[in-house]
Amino acid sequence: MTESIERDARHKARMQRKKALIDEKIAQAQDEYGLLLVHTGNGKGKSSSAFGMVARALGHGVKVGVVQFIKGGMSTGEEAFFRRFPDEVAYHVMGEGYTWDTQDRQRDIDKAQQAWAVAAQLLNDPQVGLVVLDELNIALKHGYLDLETVLRDIESRPELQHVVATGRGAPQGLIDAADTVTEMSLVKHAFKSGVKAQKGVEF
Amino acid sequence: MTESIERDARHKARMQRKKALIDEKIAQAQDEYGLLLVHTGNGKGKSSSAFGMVARALGHGVKVGVVQFIKGGMSTGEEAFFRRFPDEVAYHVMGEGYTWDTQDRQRDIDKAQQAWAVAAQLLNDPQVGLVVLDELNIALKHGYLDLETVLRDIESRPELQHVVATGRGAPQGLIDAADTVTEMSLVKHAFKSGVKAQKGVEF
Repeated sequence: MTESIERDARHKARMQRKKALIDEKIAQAQDEYGLLLVHTGNGKGKSSSAFGMVARALGHGVKVGVVQFIKGGMSTGEEAFFRRFPDEVAYHVMGEGYTWDTQDRQRDIDKAQQAWAVAAQLLNDPQVGLVVLDELNIALKHGYLDLETVLRDIESRPELQHVVATGRGAPQGLIDAADTVTEMSLVKHAFKSGVKAQKGVEF
Repeated sequence: MTESIERDARHKARMQRKKALIDEKIAQAQDEYGLLLVHTGNGKGKSSSAFGMVARALGHGVKVGVVQFIKGGMSTGEEAFFRRFPDEVAYHVMGEGYTWDTQDRQRDIDKAQQAWAVAAQLLNDPQVGLVVLDELNIALKHGYLDLETVLRDIESRPELQHVVATGRGAPQGLIDAADTVTEMSLVKHAFKSGVKAQKGVEF
């Protein structure tokens, strides 16, 4: 209850801060606050650039939280590596792979809700300077999570905490709330139809 | 001299392999070989996704070489972090920052050539499974490096070695040679005109 009041206060403060920033570009130019970044599009690099940001943050001594909403073979490399640093990276793999569509929808929703509960804790921890919400966009696109709840928890996070959400098909509401949105577009993918996934590149 | 002959032989073998792959999709679908990836475009994530690939590779126990052709404050986070693993990552910062255009052109060319000499060694080391050529595209765009030489050294690399080249304005010749090309496009960048670079996100 107290936590809820604190969150609402932080949310209001954040919104006021954003409005002030937009109103006063000059003041904003000197300001520093946590950014919401969204990586979307059909190209490569959405998740890997988020994991590059994890390395960058760790280089600055910033603690990181990662929640993967879809567990994929793709991510085993990052997971194996970043789990080496349990004091610096809280790494949570909550999803069940790229097979959601073939599974029971209610179960998928339950899994996504459980994953969001973990994300919400990270988004409420001032000790965490960067939160990676890997493939969140997919969970939102499938309607497994309520966008309003997600945005409220993101916007009420600690002032200096950065958040990056990845995945194809980012919903407009998330794009509207983001500070920076990058679309990764596939320009060329040789042998796209059949090439074997390459260890160290694709997973 | 012997090395040069070996390189030419590997180059020829690689070209034959590529032709065979293109001719026979089915055979290729089962094949595995080192990929050349190019990250270009004006959006964010070109370098950070390459550094995410470094984390991914290290998670698989793959040794990595990094050459940064432009030293930028942007990269201090990754550098500080990956230098923790000197046995796993050979990290070379060769450039002089985002100020090339204001410097002496011949000096810039000399620096780029020195950087390429280091890259060529990595591209000739079968123990290195991933080579990151960060901001190579910029050095090529400025004409500081000879594209033919760069492509020859890349294409004559060890069979299973992956290479990722980053930077805006990738030249067509590099795109033509690449297996995968991703363009990072800026969809939205709030306060673009004046926001302070954010530690852990932008550098």
